[in-house]
Formats: sequence, structure tokens, C-alpha cells
Amino acid sequence: MTKTASIIGGGVIGGGWAARFLLSGWDVRVFDPDPEAERKIGEVLDNARRSLPGLSDVALPDEGRLSFHDTLSDAVAGADWIQESVPERLDLKLRVYAGVQAACAADAIIGSSTSGFKPSALQDGSARPAQIVVTHPFNPVYLLPLVELVTTAANDAATITRAQNIIRDIGMHPLHVKKEIDAHIADRFLEAVWREALWLVRDGIATTEEIDDAIRFGFGIRWAQMGLFETYRVAGGEAGMRHFMAQFGPALKWPWTKLMDVPDFTDELVDLIADQSDAQSGAYSIRELERIRDNNLVAMMRALKGQDWGAGALLNAQGHRKAGLPGLDQADLSQPVPTLRRAVPLDWTDYNGHMTESKYLEAFALSTDRFMRVLGCDDDYIASGGSYFTAETHIRHIDECHAGARIEVRTQMLLGQGKKLHVFHSMYEGGRLLATGEHFLLHVDLETRRPSPPSAEIEAAMARVAEAQAGLGWPEGAGNAIRRPA
Amino acid sequence: MTKTASIIGGGVIGGGWAARFLLSGWDVRVFDPDPEAERKIGEVLDNARRSLPGLSDVALPDEGRLSFHDTLSDAVAGADWIQESVPERLDLKLRVYAGVQAACAADAIIGSSTSGFKPSALQDGSARPAQIVVTHPFNPVYLLPLVELVTTAANDAATITRAQNIIRDIGMHPLHVKKEIDAHIADRFLEAVWREALWLVRDGIATTEEIDDAIRFGFGIRWAQMGLFETYRVAGGEAGMRHFMAQFGPALKWPWTKLMDVPDFTDELVDLIADQSDAQSGAYSIRELERIRDNNLVAMMRALKGQDWGAGALLNAQGHRKAGLPGLDQADLSQPVPTLRRAVPLDWTDYNGHMTESKYLEAFALSTDRFMRVLGCDDDYIASGGSYFTAETHIRHIDECHAGARIEVRTQMLLGQGKKLHVFHSMYEGGRLLATGEHFLLHVDLETRRPSPPSAEIEAAMARVAEAQAGLGWPEGAGNAIRRPA
Repeated sequence: MTKTASIIGGGVIGGGWAARFLLSGWDVRVFDPDPEAERKIGEVLDNARRSLPGLSDVALPDEGRLSFHDTLSDAVAGADWIQESVPERLDLKLRVYAGVQAACAADAIIGSSTSGFKPSALQDGSARPAQIVVTHPFNPVYLLPLVELVTTAANDAATITRAQNIIRDIGMHPLHVKKEIDAHIADRFLEAVWREALWLVRDGIATTEEIDDAIRFGFGIRWAQMGLFETYRVAGGEAGMRHFMAQFGPALKWPWTKLMDVPDFTDELVDLIADQSDAQSGAYSIRELERIRDNNLVAMMRALKGQDWGAGALLNAQGHRKAGLPGLDQADLSQPVPTLRRAVPLDWTDYNGHMTESKYLEAFALSTDRFMRVLGCDDDYIASGGSYFTAETHIRHIDECHAGARIEVRTQMLLGQGKKLHVFHSMYEGGRLLATGEHFLLHVDLETRRPSPPSAEIEAAMARVAEAQAGLGWPEGAGNAIRRPA
Repeated sequence: MTKTASIIGGGVIGGGWAARFLLSGWDVRVFDPDPEAERKIGEVLDNARRSLPGLSDVALPDEGRLSFHDTLSDAVAGADWIQESVPERLDLKLRVYAGVQAACAADAIIGSSTSGFKPSALQDGSARPAQIVVTHPFNPVYLLPLVELVTTAANDAATITRAQNIIRDIGMHPLHVKKEIDAHIADRFLEAVWREALWLVRDGIATTEEIDDAIRFGFGIRWAQMGLFETYRVAGGEAGMRHFMAQFGPALKWPWTKLMDVPDFTDELVDLIADQSDAQSGAYSIRELERIRDNNLVAMMRALKGQDWGAGALLNAQGHRKAGLPGLDQADLSQPVPTLRRAVPLDWTDYNGHMTESKYLEAFALSTDRFMRVLGCDDDYIASGGSYFTAETHIRHIDECHAGARIEVRTQMLLGQGKKLHVFHSMYEGGRLLATGEHFLLHVDLETRRPSPPSAEIEAAMARVAEAQAGLGWPEGAGNAIRRPA
């Protein structure tokens, strides 16, 4: 059954939540008195629609329905999740919760996007404190997986588990903070860095651009994949964390930070920083910077996905759950078998504006992998010493497609006998044929690296597919060569 | 002429510098009284050799010569650059400089890897302060591009320029810090985050693993590509940096950080953190973590390279400088033209341990791009509305190769006439043929997306290549199809 989320307060954060829920198949009901709310959320949704669907290697479900509501009570009616992202004023938030709780289901979860307030402060005076939690996301909410889920003793275990499951359902990672503190975890670091950065700019040590370069050419790249402690553990070498701490401990007594002190937030300081930021980034509009950022994030998170690490490991865990492709027992084997359903990610396109040629082969290779698994050549089988190597590939490009396109690959087996496996993939966007990939593979012994017979189970599976697909006939374009010029 | 660097003090940082210089073609002379120095530097070099060469899309020069020396004076003799990475004690560093300056060239540059000391403190009492600068790198030095180059009024402009050029020559980015401060720039942020993290662990708010997740699933990924200020500029939306600061300014008065205060660095705190770190990362040895980290960094930096942004834009700028492939005027056109020379990067291999099939096409596509450029279809031409689309591809896999392999692709034109371009790439590792890629391309009008004749210049260039390569004959394997099973 379709689930419903209410978004209270639009803007960049509320819009990001709306996009997460919608693109995960939830219906979304928005309440925001700002007359610009629909336009603002629409802009965030545009960004999310171009970047999120291709992030994973499987297609997302169909989008839910988006609606805008004039009253708070109308917006929260029937909602399973209510996400509050109103400005950072406690009195305002408490007023919103009173209105929400007067109209919402008693078992709905009310999550707050607050950066700073503790959940106990948000629950204070509430009729049903048990349903209020902090769920603090990070911009862009539609791409970054982190949600700080902060709870109190008033939240029962069942509510917390339900909140965690819903956060995972929309592709995010619930980091459960069990002991509340102002600003939770991540924003304490951001605040510390922000204060130090203000000093550095104010004192003329570095410009905003130099500070950004000091971050992104050094520790920023490290922190995208390992955090502070794991990075230092590695730096400590074989002697480990104790050794590192013995080395780094004394620096705590040195004048390496101004953070004992806070700079005056004067107009002069604001001007200095705003002017430096214009000089650094003013060549791009905010819209352009958002798209550059999203392209970068998608490309890097997909790179981590290839390594099955950090945010990429989260994506892989979701992908396994949602692939939804038929196995040998579920598939209609009399037809070509669906072996890939996904959106074209941002980093698969090239300077011609369309999906680039090597990514067709990447998609076909994923389809071949999937087909191998259907036949029984899975991770365990490969670990036992057998696999398939591609010997020959023939790709025909029939039509173009672009980032975001939902593509499907269907696979016909032309030959599956002994060590030989000959498959023919057809890639479609809807009913439009985009490309075909014909591949000849040999089963190999991973020890000798030479061709070898597959297991009896794989032989049997191939025989079953061959019999079922016998009526399909020879596909158009298979067995073709690039013609020799006359 | 081969240049020479002296590495004073090995270990992780000194070893990283040694690797940077060596793999950039410099001779490297090491002085380190540690009897384990040769082994330790060897381990860093192993890591560097497997990760750095494939990072860029062009091959690095041949490695320089590495030698170990028993005396400081022998190690620095004839050196153009002397990098000091001894422990963080000022008296020790000053003693080292005295010894170095007694034996080194007066115009050699002495760079210090110090994390904390100002260059004026390092120059204090020196006979030739002008040749001493801070060049503070980040671990792993062989992958991360950042070097904080900190100078004083004692350093003349020519020395600073020379230092910047050498840093760029070894593939790094000199961030020139003109006003010295303890801990320079980046380590002030790291120190601030470290202090805050110690509090969070000590107070039981979060474990080391939760803190690492709070970083790498959220702002860490952002900071790998934009820094603090550009990220906040985007978050501020169209209203820009002033708007963001007006919103965030008040938080400076809130209790969002403990950094006014420093936790006691007790044995209990060290144990707490070391134990949590073991629970978090103890399943991997440091060596495994280093390789996981390097795989991640290479994959993400290459992802940013594809977006031409941040650390990836730095790589592209280096790539253009060093590609060294012949143009139409330099090439021996009677032979297949070299169109790619590179090392196989870490992220091009798959679960079978060898280069994965789609990356063969990525390499061939780079070769096709290069060949198009040789013919005159370059960025300007594409911007004017013409380009080539691949219609058909045929790849034959002959032999395997692995990460780090130096590969070369050579390209024969089978047909270049009107809108048609038919090329045949052969990929070699040394004398070993790995694969062939045959591609049929059509020149297109990027407006109509339909085939169209190329410019007269491209026609002329194709005619020139056709005439020169006429004697080459039809290559083995071209025009083949995957055979239809009998």
C-alpha cells in the first residue's frame, strides 16, 4: 500500500525530504504558507529527478503523488511520517507540533530537521512526546544518506525501529544518537570548522577559496570514505591508534586553534566573506553550482559503490534489496529474460550529451553478470574457482538516450553448451530499441586461467534456458560484422 | 636532465614524498638513521606504485633511481629539493637544517613537512633562511594533491616560484599561505574537529565508528568536491552568502561546540578511543585499510576527473601537460598511430582480478577521441556543431592485464571517407597484444542528430592518413563476426 509523508515547511531541506519520499514511491502532502513554496520545492525536485534515480544500479519505484495543502491539519491527515523543517525557533516548532498532533494519527512519526535542538526540548509540553524524534538530514537531502536520528527515553523501542526502517526505505542511513546533545554530532564539527574558518578569513591568513582548496584537495577527500578515527588509525601505522594518540596528544596543548574564542560577527566580517565568496564562485549561478555539486556527488558515490565502501556500500545494500529482477524460477524463459532495469546516471553521459559508448558495455556487462547468476554462476561459485570471461563483443548503437532515462535490458541465450556461452542483449527505453550487445564468453578455471567445463548445475540451467528459448529464433543483427569497405 | 630530491626522515610522510618524486622521474636519495627505514619506505612505495600510475589518463615517466645514504651530507649532495620529515621537535629540525645547509647547494629548496611550526621558526638562526620553506603534505602523500607552501619575507619571489613549479611537476597542488600561523590552515580544522570528537567520545555521545559515519555519510562527501564556503554558498540559495551568514551567524552564540575547552588526555580516554577503534576497524590490518583507502581515493578522484572539478580538475590539467602523444604532424603515419599510453587504474579491475570488459571500451573510446582530435575534430570543432557518433563496435579479448599495467593503443584507419570513419585499435602491454577494438563511426550534425559530411579540413586529414596507411593492409581480426553456432 502506498504510504504517505507530510512535509511541513518547504525550502531546500523540506524539498529534499519531499523528493526522497516521492522518488521512493510515497505520496507527499506539503504544508508551507510561503507563496513561493510550490516553485521552491519544484526546483529541488527537478534537481532530485536528474540525480537520484541513476545513483543506484536498479530502477526506483514509480513516483508517488505530490499535493499542496492550505492547512496544517489537511496536510497531516493520514500521514505515516510527518517531517518538520520550519525555521530554527523553538517556540515556532512547539506551536507546529501542537497543530500537527491535533490532526495526525497517534502512531505517525513526527521527525524534526532541526540542526540544533535536543529532542527533549521538542517533546517538552507535548501531549504525545513518544511520536516526536529528531531526524536531521544533510543537504542535498535527496543525495546524501545521513540522517541523525536522535531520541529520548520518551520514545519507545518500536517507534525507533519503525523510524529506522522508514529512513532506510527511502534510501537513507539512520545514525541513532542515543544520548542527546545540542547540535547532535555532525554539526558540532561543522560549527567548530566554521568558527576556525571565520578567524582565518578575518585575520587575513587565507581567503574563502584558499580554505576550500585546503579542505577539498586534502582531508575532504579522505573524509568522503573514512572518517576521522579510521583515517588516523591508518596514519598511526601498524602501531595503531594508541601510537597515533601518543603522537598527536601533545598538540592539544599547542596554540593550534582559536576555538576557545569566538570572532565578533560584524558587518565587516560578513562583507569580507561574501566578497571573497563572490570572487571564488561568482562565475556560476547557484543553480549551476547545485548541478555541478550533484554531478560530483553522484560520480563519487558511484565510485565508492564500485569499491563497496562507505556511502557506496549503503547503495549496494539497498540495490540488493530492490533489484526485483526475476530468477530462473520466476522468469518467463520463453522470452528474453530481463537482466537490467535502471536509470542512466549523471556520470554515464559525455560531451555529446548522451550516454557514452563504454557505458553501454558497462550496462551489458551488468546484464551478463545477472544472466550468469541466473544460471548459477554467483559469488559462491566464483569463490569456488569458476567464472566466465568475455572473449568477444559486438555492439550496435541504434538510438540515443540521456541521463535519467529508464532503460531495460532483455537477454536471449544463443548458445549455452559446455564451456561456451553466447548471449544477445537488447537495450530498450520504453518500447524504443537503443542498442544490442552480443557477447561470446568462455567458462574458465580461475586457477589456470584456461577454458574449462562449468558445473553440472550450470550445464543443466543452460539446457533449461536453451529449451525454453528455442522458439525465439535468431535475433536481427546477431552474428553481424562491421562491413569491410568496398 | 634528471633532477634529484633528498628525503630526510622516512616513515609514512617521507616515504610518500619519496614515492611522488620517484614516480615523477626524479632520482631520490634518502637519509634516515632508523634501521627499518628502507623497509618502511619500500612499503609506502609498494602502495604508491599500485595506485598512483593509473590515477591520470596518461603514463608517468620512467621511475628515477632510489638510493639510501649513511650520512646527511652524502644524501643532500647535488639535490635540487630537500624534504625534511623528521619528528615534530623544533630543536631537532634546526639541527637537521644546520647539517643540510653545510652540505647542500645554496639554491636547493629545503621543504619541511611540519604540521605545526611556522617557517620563521624554522628559518631562525639559519645561515641561508631564504632556502627554507614549509611544504606540508597530507597522507597518503602519493595520492592527495595538497601541499601547504608557507613562506616568509625571507623567501624571495624566485625561490617561491621555483618551489611552486616543482610541486606541480610532481603532480601536487601548492597552496601558497602567505601569512604564517601555527598549524597553517588545514590542521587547524583537523585539530578543531579532533578536540570536539574527543569530547563526544569521552562524554559517551557517540563512538568512534558513529563519529566516522556522521562524517563520511554527510559533510565528508560534500567536502571532497567543494569546501566549506562554496558548500554554504549553495545552501544559502539564490539569496547567496550574505543570506546564509545571517541565518547561521546566531549559532555562534549557542552551545554548539565544546571547543572553548580541552578534554584531559587521560589514559582512560586513550583506552576508550583505542578500544572503540578496534571494534570499528580491527577486522582489517593497517595494510588492508591502506589499500582500501587508496582504492577509494583513486576511484573518487577519477570520478571527479570525469567531472573536471576539484582534485579531478587538477589531474586533467596535469594530463594535458604530459600526454606526449603525437599529433598528425609528428606521427609516423605509415604505421598505426599511438592514441593512448596509460597505466590501468585500480578502479578498472573486477572480481576476476583483471581489467573489466567495459574498461577496454573506455580505453578504446579514449583512443577514438584522440584519433578524432588528430583529424581535427577537437573541442572547438565539436562546439561548432559537428562530432562523431559510434554506430558499431567489435572487441576481441586476446589476453588479460591487471591494475598498474602500462598499456598502449595504436590505431589504424580502415576507412575515412565522407561521413564514414572506420578505425581499428590494437591494445598492447609491452609486446603482448591484449585486445582489439574495431569501431564504425558516423559524422553527425549535433543539431539534427543526423549523419552529415565533416569539414573539408577533416576530409583532407583523413585522406592524408588513408594515403600514408595504404600499405598497412587489412589487420587480422578486422571485419570478423561472432560466429553463429552450428
